[in-house]
Amino acid sequence: MSKGEISEFVADLERQGGEPLPDARLVYKTYGALNEDHSNAILFPTRFGGTHEQNEFMIGQGHALDPERYFIIVPNMFGNGVSSSPTNAPAPYGGGGFPDITIYDNVRQQYRLVTDVLGIERFAMAVGWSMGAQQAFQWASLYPDTVPRLACLCGTAKTTDHNRVFLESLRAAIEADSLYQGGHYNAPPLGGLRAVGRIYAGWAYSQDWYRAKGYRALGYETFDDYITGYWDALYKERDANNIMAMTWTWIHNDISANDRFGGDLGAALGAITAKTVLMPCMTDLYFRTADSEDELQHLQSGRLLEIPSIWGHMSAAGQNEPDTQFIDQVLKDLLAS
Amino acid sequence: MSKGEISEFVADLERQGGEPLPDARLVYKTYGALNEDHSNAILFPTRFGGTHEQNEFMIGQGHALDPERYFIIVPNMFGNGVSSSPTNAPAPYGGGGFPDITIYDNVRQQYRLVTDVLGIERFAMAVGWSMGAQQAFQWASLYPDTVPRLACLCGTAKTTDHNRVFLESLRAAIEADSLYQGGHYNAPPLGGLRAVGRIYAGWAYSQDWYRAKGYRALGYETFDDYITGYWDALYKERDANNIMAMTWTWIHNDISANDRFGGDLGAALGAITAKTVLMPCMTDLYFRTADSEDELQHLQSGRLLEIPSIWGHMSAAGQNEPDTQFIDQVLKDLLAS
Repeated sequence: MSKGEISEFVADLERQGGEPLPDARLVYKTYGALNEDHSNAILFPTRFGGTHEQNEFMIGQGHALDPERYFIIVPNMFGNGVSSSPTNAPAPYGGGGFPDITIYDNVRQQYRLVTDVLGIERFAMAVGWSMGAQQAFQWASLYPDTVPRLACLCGTAKTTDHNRVFLESLRAAIEADSLYQGGHYNAPPLGGLRAVGRIYAGWAYSQDWYRAKGYRALGYETFDDYITGYWDALYKERDANNIMAMTWTWIHNDISANDRFGGDLGAALGAITAKTVLMPCMTDLYFRTADSEDELQHLQSGRLLEIPSIWGHMSAAGQNEPDTQFIDQVLKDLLAS
Repeated sequence: MSKGEISEFVADLERQGGEPLPDARLVYKTYGALNEDHSNAILFPTRFGGTHEQNEFMIGQGHALDPERYFIIVPNMFGNGVSSSPTNAPAPYGGGGFPDITIYDNVRQQYRLVTDVLGIERFAMAVGWSMGAQQAFQWASLYPDTVPRLACLCGTAKTTDHNRVFLESLRAAIEADSLYQGGHYNAPPLGGLRAVGRIYAGWAYSQDWYRAKGYRALGYETFDDYITGYWDALYKERDANNIMAMTWTWIHNDISANDRFGGDLGAALGAITAKTVLMPCMTDLYFRTADSEDELQHLQSGRLLEIPSIWGHMSAAGQNEPDTQFIDQVLKDLLAS
């Protein structure tokens, strides 16, 4: 479904790391209508490499995120190519000059949009997948009164070492391409992007998925067709600086890395009052159930439900209908609770 | 321990993929002495990126591989920088001109060495880790009369899709570095090598190992010290063409990809008569227990023993003493059986 309204919130973006980014564009799409008492809003931030479009498989009649019933807000994360990003920021902020932006920076700006522009004091729910889950976590920790329900799919409140090593390898692959030139390239560093896609391929899906030749369900007959037709093709079109911006954000994800919590992750998690569902996938290679279990101990009202799938991290990407239905039902139950 | 004799077997290397490599040097090291009836030999091939030196932690008095008792032969795999490799082959075979060599090619040449030069008809055992396990598997399948006991640590008889996607990412990272020049470089492609190390870092150890800050046991206080001090430093010294040669060998590993078995993996495994122990590590990210379980079904006399460790693939690398002792005991039991 693509019906909805695309708007933008333009304002200076305060950054934890330094000077504000002036006139930052926070592009968001909304689905459905806000009800009279402003109580039916759902926040659904975007994930790495995704825009509002990649969230739309979860939105529609019959889904938990039903625009007939809810007002669904999808803010595009900075760096994703739609909101202010290396690919669209004016000089001197475009390309290799794009500033470092944290999850905290993203969420604080989203808060201004939600409260000042949209006039919402309290969501029905915040939900996100992967980097979207990071934003949802940060929201619930910073603004507990705004987030009564929280669903985090395949994402953690703080990036783990093992997750980081994956991200460092993506960045090293781009930096290995001499066309990259520290971000000041004229032609895209296609070799680096190809390597990024092929690294990602080994993490996004599980070993069991490969053993079951899961790529056939994506329409590829052979492993080689899949690698070239899916990953090479996908990353050839992506922008290296956007990837560098988003991986920087991801690496530095830590909902406690701010003045409020001073690095105390337990306190930042403990501040969450939302009814929370943590949903790691049992075969996710970088967001592990064990990580979610650690988080769960600090939550006031949390539970953990594994996504029972061999689709690994991609179980929540809308590629496998049984997983999508499983998640949808959990969200329906959470909204009804 | 480093006592032992280094020798070389020089002969044309027949290759499945084309013309022989003339005067190929198969460098091997032996430990201990062959007994009178030539019954005490153990074959222990090398692994990816390793030479005979990296096998020596398993060899010594008190170990299963005790040179006081056994005659241990460590053949260096082609491409590893010691036996014929891109870094040492004369023109036109050096550097980017190095030919593709399979596990089968390696093992057939080792067989000539073992039978013609060393006069051994039957080992006490063949054992290997990772690519060494691939060679041991191939030995036991092609020459079952020579291999009465077989131990395969963290290695499979055929490279799986999921394992291959990891290898393709290593290769793509090297190819992303324009200094690589298709293998015809003058200066090493250091950016590509750095990326290779950082990709490897995410696969070699498990998520649980990172969660437990296992790098502290390696002498690194922080994650950053570990990434730069271990992986960056290690791969800065490695040769890109050697990596390309060995990953080609690894990708094409399939003990049934030969005239004898015509691609029938079940038949190639079924031809193994050795008492076999398959030892995947329970947290290995690329050689999975499920893969070993599939293999086990075809073996005449096999059993599976998981290495109970968070050290992942590196559990058999000699870095964690409890794992080394666990493996050593299994090998002792196998030799006594």
